[in-house]
Amino acid sequence: MNVVVGQSGGPTSVINASLAGVFVGAKQAGAKKIYGMQNGIQGFLQEKFIRLDEVLTEEKVELLKRTPACYLGSCRYKLKPAEKDGSDYQKIFAILAKYQIDCFLYIGGNDSMDTVAKLSAYGKKIGSPVRFVGVPKTIDNDLMITDHTPGYGSAAKFVATAMKELVCDSTIYDLYSVTIVEIMGRNAGWLTAASALAKDEDCEGVDMICLPETPFTLDEFIGRVAALLKEKKSLVIAVSEGVKLPDGRYVCELASEASEDVFGHKNLTGTASFLASVCAKELKTKTRAIELSTLQRCAAHIASLTDVNEAFEVGRYALNAAVSGQSCVAGVLIRDNDSPYICRAGVAPVDEIANFEKTVPLGWIDRENWSLREQFLVYARPLIMGELAHTYENGLPKHISK
Amino acid sequence: MNVVVGQSGGPTSVINASLAGVFVGAKQAGAKKIYGMQNGIQGFLQEKFIRLDEVLTEEKVELLKRTPACYLGSCRYKLKPAEKDGSDYQKIFAILAKYQIDCFLYIGGNDSMDTVAKLSAYGKKIGSPVRFVGVPKTIDNDLMITDHTPGYGSAAKFVATAMKELVCDSTIYDLYSVTIVEIMGRNAGWLTAASALAKDEDCEGVDMICLPETPFTLDEFIGRVAALLKEKKSLVIAVSEGVKLPDGRYVCELASEASEDVFGHKNLTGTASFLASVCAKELKTKTRAIELSTLQRCAAHIASLTDVNEAFEVGRYALNAAVSGQSCVAGVLIRDNDSPYICRAGVAPVDEIANFEKTVPLGWIDRENWSLREQFLVYARPLIMGELAHTYENGLPKHISK
Repeated sequence: MNVVVGQSGGPTSVINASLAGVFVGAKQAGAKKIYGMQNGIQGFLQEKFIRLDEVLTEEKVELLKRTPACYLGSCRYKLKPAEKDGSDYQKIFAILAKYQIDCFLYIGGNDSMDTVAKLSAYGKKIGSPVRFVGVPKTIDNDLMITDHTPGYGSAAKFVATAMKELVCDSTIYDLYSVTIVEIMGRNAGWLTAASALAKDEDCEGVDMICLPETPFTLDEFIGRVAALLKEKKSLVIAVSEGVKLPDGRYVCELASEASEDVFGHKNLTGTASFLASVCAKELKTKTRAIELSTLQRCAAHIASLTDVNEAFEVGRYALNAAVSGQSCVAGVLIRDNDSPYICRAGVAPVDEIANFEKTVPLGWIDRENWSLREQFLVYARPLIMGELAHTYENGLPKHISK
Repeated sequence: MNVVVGQSGGPTSVINASLAGVFVGAKQAGAKKIYGMQNGIQGFLQEKFIRLDEVLTEEKVELLKRTPACYLGSCRYKLKPAEKDGSDYQKIFAILAKYQIDCFLYIGGNDSMDTVAKLSAYGKKIGSPVRFVGVPKTIDNDLMITDHTPGYGSAAKFVATAMKELVCDSTIYDLYSVTIVEIMGRNAGWLTAASALAKDEDCEGVDMICLPETPFTLDEFIGRVAALLKEKKSLVIAVSEGVKLPDGRYVCELASEASEDVFGHKNLTGTASFLASVCAKELKTKTRAIELSTLQRCAAHIASLTDVNEAFEVGRYALNAAVSGQSCVAGVLIRDNDSPYICRAGVAPVDEIANFEKTVPLGWIDRENWSLREQFLVYARPLIMGELAHTYENGLPKHISK
C-alpha cells in the first residue's frame, strides 16, 4: 500500500501535526511508500514528491508537531470542474497509477475539501480504486459537521493570551483610551469570539466584541464606546476583520476599496484602524489600532496541546478511513461531552463539509452587551487547554529542518 | 525605613519583575512600609498609594514576575525644570516628608531617569535625606552605560520567535512574495536587529534587516529586494519603524504626516505597509505588511528567563543602593563575559544614562548585505536564553490579580 499526502491553503499552527498523524497512521498501517506532495496538488501535477518514510525519524515527527505552517509547502490551486476541463484530472489519475497510490490524503480548508470532493467524484466515475480523504484545518473554525476544526484551538489560545496581555498593557495609564484589536475572520467570528476567553479572575477582559454575525452601524458602535467610556477610562475592543454594516458591506469597505483573491474572497484590511480613526474623530479620545495579523495562524510556541493532539488524531483517523476503503470523506471531530471534555475523531462526507461556512450561533452572542454568552465559553474553553513542551535551542522553539 | 516605588513610561514584559526585585529587596532590608505609587509620579502627587507590604504575598510576587505591563499603573508625566516651576517639587518633597519616605525608586525609561535626576538634584539643593534611584527598563535597549536594558531580552525573544514562525508561514507557496515585518524602534535598531537571531539550522532566517542606524534610499531598498528575488522566491524583511532616508527623514514620512507625542517624539506608523506598497508597485510582486505591534512589549508568555532574572536583580540592587545611601544613580547591567555569559547588576550616575540614546554600533551592521555581524549575535544571544515556567489557568498564563 502506498500513500500520498499534501497540504493546501493558508497555514495553521497544527497543520503539521495532522501531517504527522497521517504519517504515523500510514506507518502503523504498514504503508510501503509514503509520498509528500510539495506545494499541494500543484506540486503533485509536477510529480514533486518527497519520500516521507525515508526522511521522517521519530524525533523529526515530534519536531514536525511543533513546527507551524506547511512542512510540505502549500498552494492555492483550484481544480476546474471536470466537465469543463478534464486535463488536470487525467494527469492526476495517470500520476496516481504511475506511483501505485492507494490513498490520497489532503490537509486543508474549505477549498481543499472541494478538491477532495472533485477528485473522489472523478475517481468514482472512471472506476479508480484510489481513496481520497480530506483532513480539515482552519483557524477560522467555519467548517460544517465537525464540532470544531483543527487549528482553531491554537489560534484561539494565541488570541486569548494576546488579549490578556494587551489588556494589561492598555490599562496602565490614567487616561481615556480606546484600543481596537483586529482579529482574523471574514464571515465567521469564531476567532474574535475567543477574545472572550481572556476574562478571568486576574483579567477584566475585553470590553466589546464585534463579530461579522451581528452587523452594526457606525452610530451604534460609537454609541456603545461612548457609553462604556462613562464607566471606565481604558477600553479594549476586539473586532473581526470582517465586521459588517446592516446593508451587508464590510465596515472596512468604508475605508478602502477591497480587492479579491483568486477564490473571490475579498481582501480585508484596516478594519481596526478605520474604527480607531472614527473613535478618535467622534469621541476625541486617544486610540490605538492593533492587528494580530499572521501570528494568529503560526504562533506555534503557544499552541494548544488539545489542538495539537486532535489535529494529529484527525490525520491518523482519516488515513485509517482511507486504508479501510472509505473515500470522499473528511476527518471530523465529534464532541461527546463538554465537562469533562470528551472528543473523538471520525469522518463525514466531504461534500457536507466543503463550501459551506459555519458561523457563531446567534443565540451564543449577547448582541446588547457586545459580548459572548456562557454557551460559547463552554464550547471554546476546552479547545485551548494544555501546552506542548517545546525544545528550545539558542533561546528559540526548535522546528523541523528541511 | 520606608520605601516608595513607582513605574512610568511604556511597559515591557519584565517591568513587574523589577518591581518584584525592589519589593523583595526592601523586605530583606527590613523596610517597614513599602508604598507603591499608582500611575507613577502623577499618582504620587495625588497621594495614590497602595501598601505593597500588605498585599504582596510570596505567591503574588511570583505571579508579578509573570505579569506584563505595569502592576502599579504608569504615566507620561514630565517634571518641568525646577527653576521654571517649583510647585511639583515642593509638593513631592512635602509628601515624602509626610509619609517618612527614605528611598524613592522609579522604574522606567529615559524620561523616567530624567525624573530621578531632577528629583535628586532638587533634593540635594534643599538638603533632603531621601535617596532617589532609577531602575531602567525599555524594550528599545537604547540607554547608555548599561550593557543592555531589562525588557530588551524578552522583546528580542518575542521578535526572534515570531520571525522564525513568520518565515515558516511566508515561505510555503511556490510564488514570488515579499513579507515586510515592522518592528519597534524609533532611532535605535536593537529590537529589529534581534530578528537576526531567528536564523539557525532549522530556519533560513530573514532576508534583509533594515535599521534606523543605516539610512537608505528607496532605490537602494528596491534594488536589494529585486536582487534577492532572483535567488529565492519568498522574502521576509525586518524593518524598524524608524528607518530613515539619507536626508534624515523617516521613510514613513513619505507615506503620511507624522504627529508628535508630549515628549516631542514622532508617532511612526505604516513603515512596513508603505515599503510593501512600493515593492508591489515597482516589482509587481505579492506583498504583505505585518506590524508586530504592542505584543513586542507585553508578550510575557514568551519572556526570556535571563531578562526576568536580570530585571529582578537590577530592581533589588537599586533598592540596596538606595538603602546604603546612594542617590541620583540608576541600576545598570555589567557584562563580565560573553560565553559563558556572566552579567551582574550595579549602579551608575543617572545623568549619564538619561537623555541619550545608544544605537547599534555601525561596526556590527553589515550594510552591504543588510544583515547583522557576528558581534551582534554574540551580544544578543545570551539575552534571550531561558523560559519562565508559567502557571496556566483555564488554558492561559496566570497573572497577578489587582
